[in-house]
Amino acid sequence: LRFTYHCPVRWSDMDVYGHVNNARFLTLYEEARVAMFFGDLPSLKDGVVISRHEIDYLRPVDFGDPVRIESWIEEIRPSRFTVAYELFDADVLASRARTVCVPFDLVAGRPRRLSDAEAELLRPWSGSGLP
Amino acid sequence: LRFTYHCPVRWSDMDVYGHVNNARFLTLYEEARVAMFFGDLPSLKDGVVISRHEIDYLRPVDFGDPVRIESWIEEIRPSRFTVAYELFDADVLASRARTVCVPFDLVAGRPRRLSDAEAELLRPWSGSGLP
Amino acid sequence: LRFTYHCPVRWSDMDVYGHVNNARFLTLYEEARVAMFFGDLPSLKDGVVISRHEIDYLRPVDFGDPVRIESWIEEIRPSRFTVAYELFDADVLASRARTVCVPFDLVAGRPRRLSDAEAELLRPWSGSGLP
Amino acid sequence: LRFTYHCPVRWSDMDVYGHVNNARFLTLYEEARVAMFFGDLPSLKDGVVISRHEIDYLRPVDFGDPVRIESWIEEIRPSRFTVAYELFDADVLASRARTVCVPFDLVAGRPRRLSDAEAELLRPWSGSGLP
Repeated sequence: LRFTYHCPVRWSDMDVYGHVNNARFLTLYEEARVAMFFGDLPSLKDGVVISRHEIDYLRPVDFGDPVRIESWIEEIRPSRFTVAYELFDADVLASRARTVCVPFDLVAGRPRRLSDAEAELLRPWSGSGLP
Repeated sequence: LRFTYHCPVRWSDMDVYGHVNNARFLTLYEEARVAMFFGDLPSLKDGVVISRHEIDYLRPVDFGDPVRIESWIEEIRPSRFTVAYELFDADVLASRARTVCVPFDLVAGRPRRLSDAEAELLRPWSGSGLP
Repeated sequence: LRFTYHCPVRWSDMDVYGHVNNARFLTLYEEARVAMFFGDLPSLKDGVVISRHEIDYLRPVDFGDPVRIESWIEEIRPSRFTVAYELFDADVLASRARTVCVPFDLVAGRPRRLSDAEAELLRPWSGSGLP
Repeated sequence: LRFTYHCPVRWSDMDVYGHVNNARFLTLYEEARVAMFFGDLPSLKDGVVISRHEIDYLRPVDFGDPVRIESWIEEIRPSRFTVAYELFDADVLASRARTVCVPFDLVAGRPRRLSDAEAELLRPWSGSGLP
């Protein structure tokens, strides 16, 4: 099961080279992740911090292109989980990314274990990567 | 040899959580890389595309913090090279990143080999990583 | 006649106060203006510079709100024209703005007169303000 | 008395035209205003909302230009005050702006009167505009 986020590219996403700026991709992935968490994983939306991002760029994306991001859960561990994404420009894969998320106790100010309830919410979104 | 970029954090770099937004870090690293390329590696400033970023987040960074980014060349290969960075909040390491850059022939529209002259420019900045 | 632009608010449009950042509104208006110019006023899309913006803020806008921007041409003069906008959060007027645009000769590097053909393209969008 | 804010232009402030994006100027003015309020007018830094901006663009600003923003208080009224700014590129005036600020009772959720203490803090910065 993948979460699909349709991501309108803004004119202001372009940099001086006339393509969507490579750093801005991370903002687009953020929007996809927020949509996934807020919509379907509400208990996670606040108590998570970002530990790592990886992004691969395969093709430039231009203003006006119909972009969608598909995301899923790649790995679930007791103390972290990984969101994976693919960004498509129409039907062409233009970028891939991965975000390592750490459950965080905002009151105590330190990492915490993923609860069973949270793992249960994540599970349907796992196992959707390409082989 | 490391390139040091002093990076004033803007109020607008914060997101709703009151820290510098994690996606925005990539823009800060971009500023450091641009400063390094434009100042010291001018032949590279245009004919390079970004192939990959990796970013690790160790500590939150706040508006008003004195941030500096140190960068160097981690690897030089015939068809790509890697920029590594460390972001310090005062004297504390707050984030690490790595960018894979691909020399690109803008006229032909395809990757190209790193020239000897370019490799020569990169060499003084290589070999500066921690063991 | 008004040009309607549906403007998805991004999570990253929020600032530390949890509302869409006031400076970011200008980017949203920019997206509306670009959509209007690129779609319906193609001859204007390049040869125009921005001379002035005015923005009034009536209500905060939040992430998730259904935002649309209606724009029209408020005034046409030989050497400039004014785009007016209203930004609605659902059915509530949340902001108003106005942009003074100056036709510009990009080759000569100086302001130029609006051509008759351009004035003709703008005319259907004029006269749409509220009394 | 004017408040001077040295404003490093980022590479990412440029848009596809290769100059600092016109909407981004509002973020630069925001940084100047925040610096002025946080540094010298601390009681105002939270309980104020933005009611209006006006920006005039006189010349393009480029990446690498030494930009500074001078700001002062143009008008003090019982229920609002106006910040005025001039943005200089080296010694050349490149833009002017004005922001109408409304003291706001964050608890009650409505505009409030400017306190005598606040007016006193603002007064030294007023009366600095050009005739």
